[in-house]
Amino acid sequence: MQSFTRCMPAVRQIRLSNTAFQRAAIRRPAASQILAQRRWQSSEATTSATHEGNHEHSGEGPPASKPAIKYTSETYPELKRDSKFAELTPEHVKWFRETLGTDSAILDGVNQDAGDDMEPFNSDWMRKYRGHAKLVVKPGNTEEVSKILKYCNDNMLAVVPQGGNTGLVGGSVPVFDEIVINLARMNQIRSFDDVSGILVADGGVILEVADNFLAEKNHIFPLDLGAKGSCQIGGNVATNAGGLRLLRYGSLHGNVLGLEAVLPDGTIVDDLCKLRKNNTGYDIKQLFIGGEGTIGIITGISILCPQRSNALNVAYFGLESFEKVQEAFREAKNQLGEILSAFELMDGRSQKLYNTASGNRLPLEGEHPFYCLIETSGSNTEHDQEKLEAFLEHVMGEEIVSDGVVAQDQTQIKELWGCREGVPEHLGHWGGVYKYDLSIPIGEMYSLVEECRERMMKAGLLGDSEDKPVVDVVGYGHMGDANLHLNVPVRRYDKAVEKELEPWVYEWVQKRHGSISAEHGLGIAKKPFIGYSRSETMVRLYKQIKDLYDPNGIMNPYKYI
Amino acid sequence: MQSFTRCMPAVRQIRLSNTAFQRAAIRRPAASQILAQRRWQSSEATTSATHEGNHEHSGEGPPASKPAIKYTSETYPELKRDSKFAELTPEHVKWFRETLGTDSAILDGVNQDAGDDMEPFNSDWMRKYRGHAKLVVKPGNTEEVSKILKYCNDNMLAVVPQGGNTGLVGGSVPVFDEIVINLARMNQIRSFDDVSGILVADGGVILEVADNFLAEKNHIFPLDLGAKGSCQIGGNVATNAGGLRLLRYGSLHGNVLGLEAVLPDGTIVDDLCKLRKNNTGYDIKQLFIGGEGTIGIITGISILCPQRSNALNVAYFGLESFEKVQEAFREAKNQLGEILSAFELMDGRSQKLYNTASGNRLPLEGEHPFYCLIETSGSNTEHDQEKLEAFLEHVMGEEIVSDGVVAQDQTQIKELWGCREGVPEHLGHWGGVYKYDLSIPIGEMYSLVEECRERMMKAGLLGDSEDKPVVDVVGYGHMGDANLHLNVPVRRYDKAVEKELEPWVYEWVQKRHGSISAEHGLGIAKKPFIGYSRSETMVRLYKQIKDLYDPNGIMNPYKYI
Repeated sequence: MQSFTRCMPAVRQIRLSNTAFQRAAIRRPAASQILAQRRWQSSEATTSATHEGNHEHSGEGPPASKPAIKYTSETYPELKRDSKFAELTPEHVKWFRETLGTDSAILDGVNQDAGDDMEPFNSDWMRKYRGHAKLVVKPGNTEEVSKILKYCNDNMLAVVPQGGNTGLVGGSVPVFDEIVINLARMNQIRSFDDVSGILVADGGVILEVADNFLAEKNHIFPLDLGAKGSCQIGGNVATNAGGLRLLRYGSLHGNVLGLEAVLPDGTIVDDLCKLRKNNTGYDIKQLFIGGEGTIGIITGISILCPQRSNALNVAYFGLESFEKVQEAFREAKNQLGEILSAFELMDGRSQKLYNTASGNRLPLEGEHPFYCLIETSGSNTEHDQEKLEAFLEHVMGEEIVSDGVVAQDQTQIKELWGCREGVPEHLGHWGGVYKYDLSIPIGEMYSLVEECRERMMKAGLLGDSEDKPVVDVVGYGHMGDANLHLNVPVRRYDKAVEKELEPWVYEWVQKRHGSISAEHGLGIAKKPFIGYSRSETMVRLYKQIKDLYDPNGIMNPYKYI
Repeated sequence: MQSFTRCMPAVRQIRLSNTAFQRAAIRRPAASQILAQRRWQSSEATTSATHEGNHEHSGEGPPASKPAIKYTSETYPELKRDSKFAELTPEHVKWFRETLGTDSAILDGVNQDAGDDMEPFNSDWMRKYRGHAKLVVKPGNTEEVSKILKYCNDNMLAVVPQGGNTGLVGGSVPVFDEIVINLARMNQIRSFDDVSGILVADGGVILEVADNFLAEKNHIFPLDLGAKGSCQIGGNVATNAGGLRLLRYGSLHGNVLGLEAVLPDGTIVDDLCKLRKNNTGYDIKQLFIGGEGTIGIITGISILCPQRSNALNVAYFGLESFEKVQEAFREAKNQLGEILSAFELMDGRSQKLYNTASGNRLPLEGEHPFYCLIETSGSNTEHDQEKLEAFLEHVMGEEIVSDGVVAQDQTQIKELWGCREGVPEHLGHWGGVYKYDLSIPIGEMYSLVEECRERMMKAGLLGDSEDKPVVDVVGYGHMGDANLHLNVPVRRYDKAVEKELEPWVYEWVQKRHGSISAEHGLGIAKKPFIGYSRSETMVRLYKQIKDLYDPNGIMNPYKYI
């Protein structure tokens, strides 16, 4: 392998031809691969301590051990099936079969034992949530979704809208016997205008399929995330997915121009506007963006897609303090301006653990308290290179950054990104991880990690010896979006650790007016904790919206609010 | 004056030092100046033909003639004061006086004749709309707004929220005796974080004040428009203003991170989130963005502000056809990518009329069927210059563009922008203008102008002689946003012309799924025409939202939906 080019004294830079798309494909394995690797693995670590659902655990376990996933109804014993919902009968199934017409659109566990076929629809890929659904329906078009919802609403049958089922908070699998409405068959791209960059597509289109389609037209989908090979764009919109392009292209609330959605009563919200500007009426579609399928099902989206960038560069730095990280971010915004596409933070401990657990070497010699990964993408390779050079000279000259490297080829780009993206995956090495996805005003972002570490030290829970449950307390995340992932890798899940963490973490975030769920949503996992991020007034207003659109409460019950 | 630099064979470019902000100040007169020039002028042209309120007229009249503005209640005789609203009494006024505490916060036309003092609150700057309000209240903080609204709601007193009163559809002035709630006293910037770029400010802060404040911090407000010297950011958000930076920075739906708003029942919607990511609950704030003050009053906003650009360049082209314009736009998006900040369209006729009416010379010799103005803004002058050069060489080499100039200094930048921004102002030269602010899928955008011209020709209404009412039919606008301004300059307003225009224009737009109001909103002017851009289902859903938040209907009645 080539050695990295050191930032100073001379910065060199490779030119990547047609890189943006190739690189994306190389850098991150498609979620389908990840799912293939992960599905039905590491169950012990994830299930043993999630009974209260109040943190997101992950761990690595041997593929051989595949005990059955615990039912959500067991993990959350306080949840009871709402008796207002009807129980599925063969007559119901008959109606669905006749309405959908084709056998392949129904998975019937009412009249027969659907067995393992039902499992992927009942469980999530993390093996944390598992429902008791006995019926999966796969509508082929919006009218069928409308008929299905109206029927369910009229008959008090609870439903769960399901896209790629790649969520992290248990939002897309049933809790009890809700009917799964799976969007996989609605997978058509409806139109694309290469002058305006506006794409219209079914909600069930896989994100990667949409992005590949756009790549051929020299455009990109304004959202990218690890699960792109499996997740569906309707689900992305329903969960207001954040992902890797948010810093540059903004949130879905700005990029989604129109929606088609179906309300529980069968009403088709026909707001599939293909215009950047349309100031005629309340922007109702926004309620479905991040509504997590609790007021309707998104069947189509219209979205503004940017031009694809020709040039891509990645650099990796060591820094002395979080103050320097903030300075570097300010300078990056200032000097890289319009080409800055990622500014990721990893603390020194996260990099050390990544190194230990993965065996992958770190790009820089020596140890630094903080590391950053910067990505630029722009329309001109030379210009981007010059800007990056000037930026590097400045931040190193001013001693904002202690050391750094710039990737010279795609392998190195992948390796540098690996130091960021490999962190969550490898932190489970010691047994498990307590994970929090938080949004915190940027100046105070890292204090939480420091205070949490002190807290664990004081409680005598953190140390190098086997008798200490906590290996370390680390922080990393999307600095550009003030989105911190606080991770506590542990040798074993431990009540004493949990007691120190919660509700302390949520209270800490609440005091700073942060968010207890930056990008993962509420689902079932965060439902009980919304009060830490939203006032009573806001929660009351959310309930009002829920009642307005779903008075019978059939949509994705037991979740969200 | 220096001559412009021709694009070919050699493209030269000036380097502007610290231009972005200086230029903005030079390029467009502040709205306060515009208002000073325009207020109480040109009344005949605007009022003589607006009796049905179904198009936006403008014209130029001598400052000397200032007949009283016609009351909206006379212009729209079909509107009747809703008898469910209470009439203001001295007891009401007493309550407001006691609650607000200070005399300067009240303008009382109930107990006394407020005379001319009341006029600026009762009328709009275009002199098209005029109400009968007898009370103006100016709350000093959110709690006062809450108390006022609760009192009004309890006592069935109708209100009009009012910001800078610079709207174009009559949304910010009363129709009958609604109480004006003016936000001018709520003008404090609450906080700014220069790492995240997040600004929090009162709704009554003037846009230009906010932008000047941000300029000192090397940031910009992600919205710019002609009325910046008068309009308030709360009003901008309430009307979902589009303006000049939308192509680059996107819409307010993406940039506004949080809102503080007061509902009619006094509830304070405390959603003043200072986070880029917060996936906890329905994004209710979006309903207030573009809600035009019909469900609540925006008292504070939190908004993401980009870094200010160092470099600014402007070029002006002549093109052979609208197909070439589209090609040029595609190439500009492709080659200028991240630095493209404006792509404006002017047809040849609009430029010719601008030249005739203003006496200002046009930058290019000869006549071209279409003209474009391109602006770039980026972090590096040399890079931007190189990109622009390469783009120009390409579009001229490929004969996409017939001819072009690049501004060399701020005077020329101003002059080039004048060719675009001077159009609406000078089209009134012949007597008046029928104006439409439309959003149309970009490929078909210009066909409307051509068909409209043919229509006028066929009807025998267009010609050079005095007996023809129509001078010409022209189109210009924000090509980058597919926002067309269809303008029909006339020698006099004429029923025969109106009959040809309406509902034909709206029907034409409806067939293309366009918008009858791209950026100006609905207000009172477009209320009757929402059906041309939205389905019955959507209108029903809008009414549902209105009823949910404002069951008594006291907020900005007679408007919107």
